[in-house]
Amino acid sequence: MTGLTNTPFLQNDMETFSKLETVEAMLSRIDDPTGQGDVVFTQVYREQARASAASADALEKAGIEQHPLAGVAISVKDLFDVKGAQTLAGSYVLRNAKPAAHDAAAVARLRQCGAAIIGKTNMTEFAFSGLGINPHYGTPVNVWDRLARRIPGGSSSGAAVSVAEGMAWAAIGTDTGGSCRIPAALNGIVGMKPTASTVPREGTLPLSFSYDSVGPLASTVADCARVYSAISASAAALVNRECSTLRLGVIRNYVMEGLDDSVAYAYEAALRKLAAAGVVLHDVTLPVLIDIPDVLQGGGLVAAEAFQWHRELLSSQEREYDPRVSVRIQRGRSISAADYISLLSLRERMIQRWSEQIAAFDAVLMPTVPTVAPKLEVLEDDGEYGRVNLLMLRNPTVVNVLDGCAVSLPCHERGSAPVGMSVVGDRLRDWQVLSIAQVIEQVLCA
Amino acid sequence: MTGLTNTPFLQNDMETFSKLETVEAMLSRIDDPTGQGDVVFTQVYREQARASAASADALEKAGIEQHPLAGVAISVKDLFDVKGAQTLAGSYVLRNAKPAAHDAAAVARLRQCGAAIIGKTNMTEFAFSGLGINPHYGTPVNVWDRLARRIPGGSSSGAAVSVAEGMAWAAIGTDTGGSCRIPAALNGIVGMKPTASTVPREGTLPLSFSYDSVGPLASTVADCARVYSAISASAAALVNRECSTLRLGVIRNYVMEGLDDSVAYAYEAALRKLAAAGVVLHDVTLPVLIDIPDVLQGGGLVAAEAFQWHRELLSSQEREYDPRVSVRIQRGRSISAADYISLLSLRERMIQRWSEQIAAFDAVLMPTVPTVAPKLEVLEDDGEYGRVNLLMLRNPTVVNVLDGCAVSLPCHERGSAPVGMSVVGDRLRDWQVLSIAQVIEQVLCA
Repeated sequence: MTGLTNTPFLQNDMETFSKLETVEAMLSRIDDPTGQGDVVFTQVYREQARASAASADALEKAGIEQHPLAGVAISVKDLFDVKGAQTLAGSYVLRNAKPAAHDAAAVARLRQCGAAIIGKTNMTEFAFSGLGINPHYGTPVNVWDRLARRIPGGSSSGAAVSVAEGMAWAAIGTDTGGSCRIPAALNGIVGMKPTASTVPREGTLPLSFSYDSVGPLASTVADCARVYSAISASAAALVNRECSTLRLGVIRNYVMEGLDDSVAYAYEAALRKLAAAGVVLHDVTLPVLIDIPDVLQGGGLVAAEAFQWHRELLSSQEREYDPRVSVRIQRGRSISAADYISLLSLRERMIQRWSEQIAAFDAVLMPTVPTVAPKLEVLEDDGEYGRVNLLMLRNPTVVNVLDGCAVSLPCHERGSAPVGMSVVGDRLRDWQVLSIAQVIEQVLCA
Repeated sequence: MTGLTNTPFLQNDMETFSKLETVEAMLSRIDDPTGQGDVVFTQVYREQARASAASADALEKAGIEQHPLAGVAISVKDLFDVKGAQTLAGSYVLRNAKPAAHDAAAVARLRQCGAAIIGKTNMTEFAFSGLGINPHYGTPVNVWDRLARRIPGGSSSGAAVSVAEGMAWAAIGTDTGGSCRIPAALNGIVGMKPTASTVPREGTLPLSFSYDSVGPLASTVADCARVYSAISASAAALVNRECSTLRLGVIRNYVMEGLDDSVAYAYEAALRKLAAAGVVLHDVTLPVLIDIPDVLQGGGLVAAEAFQWHRELLSSQEREYDPRVSVRIQRGRSISAADYISLLSLRERMIQRWSEQIAAFDAVLMPTVPTVAPKLEVLEDDGEYGRVNLLMLRNPTVVNVLDGCAVSLPCHERGSAPVGMSVVGDRLRDWQVLSIAQVIEQVLCA
């Protein structure tokens, strides 16, 4: 699995090296002038990370029981407030922002566990694209086939690359239409979009309050679960399930259109392995998906809510935005309150239908994105940027629209292009989805 | 208290007469050609009400324990679905509506208690005015000073008059900006606006999903509490409190502007009685109220949400609407999604400030409406209609905007014009507000 070969810091290392040694190794990767640290991170908290790690080491030496995340390096996307630091959200327009007065709720929960917040990661400006390209602060390239300079996926581009390149043990990002799962899939790691309501969003710069979810990215499902447990302050845990007890729906409409050969091959091969391991798979067509484009029409809830937040800034400083982002936000200008309310109610009805249509399954499966990471150069053309962006967002957005939860995990053969499989569940089935993802991970890695 | 003199059916009667006898007496009032039954009710369910009452009598005779509302006549506003009946919401435009397939959730809960649903009550068309005037089905006149033909208050006009004239033991209505409390105050009975989330709204024709609340109207606070308990499926109950343990805020800004002499006199006299009984009263100025007009600007959430619901109907049949209603709905047409979202977030901030500003009190008090019921003839002028409507809605709307709960109870001297005092609490303080209202009722009736 590329996910494994690309990730030098696994749990074993955490037990062999001290927390401080591990953090130091990560900091040297970040600071390596031949590496990507300067485009993956927008801010690095070297001394704070060292202090957290050293403190965890000292407490461990004193025999004090600590949280598993104590002293562990976690990166946070640059739209979470970190006390004393600016929150830029990948933008130039907020360059004069006041330093945050408090940590964002999710960051505060990580700190309560003793985590070493190692820095803030680069992202698509204002999180409004799935490709991860940033004209202001540079674009980290995908860890796979690095010479070809492929997109990292976004919007949590730096988050995924920070984990995949061993600059952080895990990351937190946000996911409004795939922003945790797309870069996870394209870089061969695990990314989770929790049910939106399960992780608090205070202190997080919003894109769309209807769809924004705060979630983890990490090398394994278990690591994601550990971070999710912390940021959701949840007492639940992974459950071991026998393959033969799993009844999974394999979605065959909407999400299967336009798959490239690599994704189609890896995804179907992975499904065969699951079936061979005894997982009960049912091909399923979900009628509710046919109506997804209706709820996204004209930019949908995201454009309306983003425009409301950006309206003042746009009126004075639109020229300082990435035009590929501002054009998408501006679509919200012409949405009327009545249209917006109609979309809210359409969404509610779709959520009900979705719940009914997937009720027979423990979870449903889909390819996280339909293609492997395209080359950056292809996306210099605005038309191609728009087309590929919509294609990348298409599958993951389904889960945001339907208020569900999902984990994307690598499903490709070791050494080939990273491909993500998403395990998707109804709202509040987060731990069930994580547990199932872990079973699948075990089958695919075996 | 006028509330008492106008209400021939109190609990005592329920114990003296059989349920069926009581229902028959109410039906004869409804059917009295010299009475108002034809404008108070839009539909009367004679046989169903008799069957429910007779069944309760039979069960009682058999010694079976029943809910206190079993066989008791309750009227429902004509925007609740009643299985097999049309829901017209006081409109002409829905005259071809299909009969409802199911009872509305609140009606179903009343039926589970064995209540006798006696009929559907008249209302302002689509509940969008506080005066209670209906050009399609006629306007019930206020029970006070009947010869002067004064407004009943609305929008739950028939609901209040059905109770005040002994055509129903209690009523359920909806309250989006005072529609339970205004007619209750003007007719000398008790009306409640519960916290919106505590009573389900399925099967209720909406005006504004942000503000709509389903609530009871009845002769006494205890009767209101009984109906509220049923429709909220709540296990809580009234608590007896000593006057001296009550610490109430008396709001002195915003809600006290433009009081007429009758209201000012009755309200201040009632406050003096409360103080004399040992209630601790604090005059208080609430800064949050100063911003209420901002959140109502351009018609606010109500206009936007109402327009969304009515958009299609208006486009084909606007001429069949009461023009005084359609003009208010049409204000929602020009509200943008961004403005709407800004209003939602302004409202959330105001709710927080309100919670902080009233936290020191068990409840706060205000006059329910600033004037006694004006004569219908005065309101033939559109300008006067608009002015008086806004004045009537002003105080009660505060509670809808701030997602609180309130009970309006009579506070005038026996024989004088009905005046309502509102006991207002923060969201989910419904039982506390009811309990305090009952203490006040006891002091004022003593």
